[in-house]
Amino acid sequence: MTPTQAWDQLRERSTELTALEGLMGLVEWDQQVMMPRAGALARGEQLSLLSGLHHDKVVDPALSDILGILSEADLDPIQAASVRNLGRTVARSARVPSELVRRGARIRAASFPAWAKAKGDDDFASFQPHLEELVAITKETIAHIKTDQADDYDVLLEAFDPGSTVADLDDMFGRLKPELGKLLDAIDGVEGPARLEGSWSVESQKRLHHEVAQALGFSYEQGRLDDSEHPFTVGIAPGDVRITTHIYPEGLLSGLSGTIHETGHGLYEQGIPLDLHSTPAGGAASFGLHESQSRFWENTIGRSRAFCVWLAPLLKKHVGQDFDVDALYGASNRVERSLIRVFADEATYNLHIAVRYDLERRIFSGELSAADLPEAWREAYRETLGVCSEDDEHGVLQDVHWAGGMFAYFPSYTLGNLYAASLGAKLLEERPQLWEEVERGEFAPTLAWLRSNIHHKAHLQDAPAIVEAAAGERDHVKDLVEYLWSRHGALHGVSR
Amino acid sequence: MTPTQAWDQLRERSTELTALEGLMGLVEWDQQVMMPRAGALARGEQLSLLSGLHHDKVVDPALSDILGILSEADLDPIQAASVRNLGRTVARSARVPSELVRRGARIRAASFPAWAKAKGDDDFASFQPHLEELVAITKETIAHIKTDQADDYDVLLEAFDPGSTVADLDDMFGRLKPELGKLLDAIDGVEGPARLEGSWSVESQKRLHHEVAQALGFSYEQGRLDDSEHPFTVGIAPGDVRITTHIYPEGLLSGLSGTIHETGHGLYEQGIPLDLHSTPAGGAASFGLHESQSRFWENTIGRSRAFCVWLAPLLKKHVGQDFDVDALYGASNRVERSLIRVFADEATYNLHIAVRYDLERRIFSGELSAADLPEAWREAYRETLGVCSEDDEHGVLQDVHWAGGMFAYFPSYTLGNLYAASLGAKLLEERPQLWEEVERGEFAPTLAWLRSNIHHKAHLQDAPAIVEAAAGERDHVKDLVEYLWSRHGALHGVSR
Repeated sequence: MTPTQAWDQLRERSTELTALEGLMGLVEWDQQVMMPRAGALARGEQLSLLSGLHHDKVVDPALSDILGILSEADLDPIQAASVRNLGRTVARSARVPSELVRRGARIRAASFPAWAKAKGDDDFASFQPHLEELVAITKETIAHIKTDQADDYDVLLEAFDPGSTVADLDDMFGRLKPELGKLLDAIDGVEGPARLEGSWSVESQKRLHHEVAQALGFSYEQGRLDDSEHPFTVGIAPGDVRITTHIYPEGLLSGLSGTIHETGHGLYEQGIPLDLHSTPAGGAASFGLHESQSRFWENTIGRSRAFCVWLAPLLKKHVGQDFDVDALYGASNRVERSLIRVFADEATYNLHIAVRYDLERRIFSGELSAADLPEAWREAYRETLGVCSEDDEHGVLQDVHWAGGMFAYFPSYTLGNLYAASLGAKLLEERPQLWEEVERGEFAPTLAWLRSNIHHKAHLQDAPAIVEAAAGERDHVKDLVEYLWSRHGALHGVSR
Repeated sequence: MTPTQAWDQLRERSTELTALEGLMGLVEWDQQVMMPRAGALARGEQLSLLSGLHHDKVVDPALSDILGILSEADLDPIQAASVRNLGRTVARSARVPSELVRRGARIRAASFPAWAKAKGDDDFASFQPHLEELVAITKETIAHIKTDQADDYDVLLEAFDPGSTVADLDDMFGRLKPELGKLLDAIDGVEGPARLEGSWSVESQKRLHHEVAQALGFSYEQGRLDDSEHPFTVGIAPGDVRITTHIYPEGLLSGLSGTIHETGHGLYEQGIPLDLHSTPAGGAASFGLHESQSRFWENTIGRSRAFCVWLAPLLKKHVGQDFDVDALYGASNRVERSLIRVFADEATYNLHIAVRYDLERRIFSGELSAADLPEAWREAYRETLGVCSEDDEHGVLQDVHWAGGMFAYFPSYTLGNLYAASLGAKLLEERPQLWEEVERGEFAPTLAWLRSNIHHKAHLQDAPAIVEAAAGERDHVKDLVEYLWSRHGALHGVSR
């Protein structure tokens, strides 16, 4: 086989893998947004089948041969990235038996509804056996993948953020936590801005969210916005990107933040170039980079004073109420030692992640079992955030990730916040007119900057290289800490 | 391999095939109900992949070996039906190259939006090349499947209604058409009931449809009711059955009839026993039998006077208007030589089918090309129904079937009407209290009768045997003609 033939074959196989991934995305979206309750039974089988088929195609020895031929050929950047990315997936998957992949999909499909019910009933005990199974099968998978003395947790991290290691994260959290502590201590002594009190109709909030997402650049020709219990985004294809949100009658701003967050994810997916799609270079570069897009739009843009200037008349239009811009800005940026990650402000958010990172590390070092988690969670919150939930609904059961078998995903949020801080700092250096544009609702130049610097790069390079090419060599922890002080220090009248 | 091992393997493979079929159903539902416009590009690839995977699994020689072992073993009825049904699929599919299956799926995925656009623009020319491709690939497929001197059209029929042949259909239409002509001639001279004039809000109609479907027995725990341009039903699993409808602001009764029709399909799918699901005996027995369920609920029940008695207060509740029961009954049963099949009354409906059957026969005998169809359609309508559409939107472009590559599906509607007439006649003999129950909105006994006589039989036998076991040996043409005279003759004051 010539390299040209090998590339043609890789394209063909990658098209099939991409189609299967799109189908898995669609099926999971449907499961959370559309599926009737009794559909769960067959859904597990369907997801298991797709995962198994995907796995079979990845580990097909003929694909390894193709990659072998190409690895010794002269390649253009798209080909080189494709061979590198797919090579990693193959190397990782080849060590996992197909039976284990299918079993995992079935376990996850059953765990999701069990978790949703357990959370609703505040009944950890009913979810515990599922969590045990999820941890056990994850450990079993790690044992297959692991080839050297690497930390078990590193094996998990590699799936979400290739190149990030426990050593990096320990260093990052080690620097970040005391800095966040200083900021919180300074704010603790000051009376913060007031919360918005009220109740707003679900239908008018929906119209508001729809218009905001569109204004930021989300295309409904290439996507949808729906309701789900837990907001998420799936990219079925660049022309079919689905974001979801959850509307809270009494949480006007928190619901909207959720939509803006998912819009950030959706814009990334809609921005993947069509000619890269269905090559192994045509996905997002990492989950951390994905979260940088969602967190950038949610926080840097969506909680800025300039955004509140633009938002106030839009709120008037949709919910019929006058809001003072500074009151909106304050309410968007209340800092609070709180219980729930998804509602957490920027200043405390990474502490919520630090708690989860620490617990996950201890689960996979064998120090904690599933049964220990409710109490360990309380203890970690008391220690890290100074608050603690009596129940598990607002404690260990609050997040969907573990129910989906996603262990080691949480650090991606903090990586995202770090990348977003550096990208935001660079963007402002290059385009000091940013805030004037945001006040006028002109988001297109910001999106264009992200499109060309991030989205259009797809997975041609790994995330750290893409961020460095976009923002230069920067200290992300320093950028994040400075950003947080500049916004939250100023709002609370304190400085370092 | 022992027969027991072979059966276990057949079960496992059938579970995968069923999961793939459920996924194809989900993907097609999504395409018509949820997918954003730009999703079409990748969707073709996804459907093609699923069809190809399904085909590969069906034609796997190991499956033929399993069937071979079982065909010589002692089998219980479920096993015997499974071997027969899957054996047919395998025999048929084994002769079609995988490449052709995938190509067909891609052509169909591209044809659907092209047809929808052409219909909206009344622009047959833009759809013609797609129709040519669809006919060509269907002929190519027939050439692979055909093993003897059978009529090409018989090969197509076998996929929808195993056992029905051109000879049967020619005989059936040959007897039915003059009888329908006599009924129409008698009615032509009489002034019929008035149409309902008015406009009703889409939202209140939706609530009405939702309640009617539920009252008939449709379970929203195991299904959904959504809007789509063209109403349809997919059974993703017995616990996940999705029906769609289309609401017309000025067509209160025609929209509702559509929902009741799809509810009939949905009740059948929800009634397939769970223990049969994912065996090859666990589907519907034929499309004709499927249509018997939809047409029975739509017409026999849904256009009865008793149903109108129950419906009137429900209309009052949802659309806020008082209706006279006899006016409702009359408007539900207006007989008219009309242009559009889906809006056609029971008395003329099978003539619309006869037109399509005749045209399809002439397409596959080579007498008509795609380009000839608009004019041939007009001529056939003039001749058969005495009316003719100037444009193609209300002519040859009106139905979705051909755009989906479904040639030879239409006769299933008439088979459905025939089966429904005999089932209805038998049901009334066994349960003369039927109309009193319907007046009170008690549909459960009727559904129970269909459940045990039809739905629970799944595909343990072929449709004609199931109908015969339920209704006895009957002349379906005679039953249908008598039923039509008894309702429509009486309403118009004419008799045979």
